[in-house]
Amino acid sequence: MVNRLSLYLRELQQLTRDGTETTSSTRLGELLGLTGAQIRKDLAYFGQFGYPGIGYRCHELSEQIRNILGTSHTWPVALVGVGNLGRALLRYKGFSLRGFEVVALFDVSPTVVDTDVEGLPVFHLDDLADTMRVRQIRLAVLSVPAAAAQQVANRLVVAGVEGILNFAPVTLSLPENVSTVGVDLAIELEQLSFAVVNRTENA
Amino acid sequence: MVNRLSLYLRELQQLTRDGTETTSSTRLGELLGLTGAQIRKDLAYFGQFGYPGIGYRCHELSEQIRNILGTSHTWPVALVGVGNLGRALLRYKGFSLRGFEVVALFDVSPTVVDTDVEGLPVFHLDDLADTMRVRQIRLAVLSVPAAAAQQVANRLVVAGVEGILNFAPVTLSLPENVSTVGVDLAIELEQLSFAVVNRTENA
Repeated sequence: MVNRLSLYLRELQQLTRDGTETTSSTRLGELLGLTGAQIRKDLAYFGQFGYPGIGYRCHELSEQIRNILGTSHTWPVALVGVGNLGRALLRYKGFSLRGFEVVALFDVSPTVVDTDVEGLPVFHLDDLADTMRVRQIRLAVLSVPAAAAQQVANRLVVAGVEGILNFAPVTLSLPENVSTVGVDLAIELEQLSFAVVNRTENA
Repeated sequence: MVNRLSLYLRELQQLTRDGTETTSSTRLGELLGLTGAQIRKDLAYFGQFGYPGIGYRCHELSEQIRNILGTSHTWPVALVGVGNLGRALLRYKGFSLRGFEVVALFDVSPTVVDTDVEGLPVFHLDDLADTMRVRQIRLAVLSVPAAAAQQVANRLVVAGVEGILNFAPVTLSLPENVSTVGVDLAIELEQLSFAVVNRTENA
C-alpha cells in the first residue's frame, strides 16, 4: 500500500509539472489504472486530504505524501559498489529528483578507490563508518556482486546504516533495526514472464 | 505471491550451486526470513512438490518453479532505449542466468542506430515490428526517458509485444492483452525511507 503512495506522488508531481493545480481521486485513478475508492482509502489511512468541491491540490498533496514517506528532506545516501550497475545508478537522475542524493561512493578495488566517479570521491570500504558519521548517512545503495553482498551489508550495519537498497540478487540477513528493500531485475522479468504465460494459457 | 516463487527459485539455485541436493520448507524459510508454512502454502497452490522424509530436491524444485514462471525456456528480449540505464542493463549478467536473453536493441538516436553496443546491433525503432517477428520477440525492456515512454510503448504494442518491463518512471496505459511490470528505482528508495522513518518514530 505504501508502494501505491509512491505512485500517487509520482503522478501528482507529473500533474504539477504539467501545470495542473487540482485533481480528484477519480482522475488519479484513471491515470494509474486504479479505482478512486482505492485511492481515497489509502490516503484516509494517513489522515484527511483534499477539499470538498475542489478535490486535491496537486502540489499540496505531493508535499503531504512526501511527509508520510519521509522524503520531504533530502537523504544523503552512500553507494557501495562502483561497478557497471553502480555507475548506471549514479547517472540516473531520478534519485535526486525524489529526495535522495548520493554523496559518497565506496569500493575495495584499487582501480577505483581514491578516484572520482561521476564527480564523487570513491572511498575504501574501511572508511565506511567514519564517512557515514561525518556525512550523516543513514541509507545505502548496495550494488556489489552477489557473493560479496552479505559481507558488505554486515559492514554497513556495523557502520550504523539504517536502510539498505539491495541490488544484489541475494536475500540479506540483517538485524531487525535495519530495513532493506531488494531490487532483483531478473525477478521482475520473471513476474512479467508469469503474467504473459498465464494470460496466454487462459486466453 | 508469484514474487515469492521467484525468491524461492533464487535460493534453490544458490543451494544447488553450493552443492546442496535437498532442502526443507523450514530451511528455505530460515534463509528467506519466512515461515515454512508460508512456503508450503505458496507451493501447494501450484501442485504437489517434495517427498516425505526427504523434503525438496533443490534442482528438481527449481525446474518446477521455472515451469510455473514460464522461464524453463529462454525468452528472447528486445531492449528499447540504449542510454546509460539501457547499457547498464545489458552488462547485467543476471538476466541471461535466469532465462532472458536480450537479442536486439532499439533506439532513435542517429549516434547509436546501426552501431553495436555490448556486441548487439542497434536497430531503429522503425524496424521494431519486423525484427520482433523475425526473432520471435514477445518481451521488451523499456529504458527510454519518461517523456518518450508511452509513445514507445504504443509502438511496441503495435509491433505485437506481450510484456513490457518498464524502467521509465511513468504509469503506462496499455491494452489488456499486454502485461507490464514497472521498476522505479526512486520508488524503491521511498519505500526504504518510509520503513526507516516509521521504525525510528515507533522506537
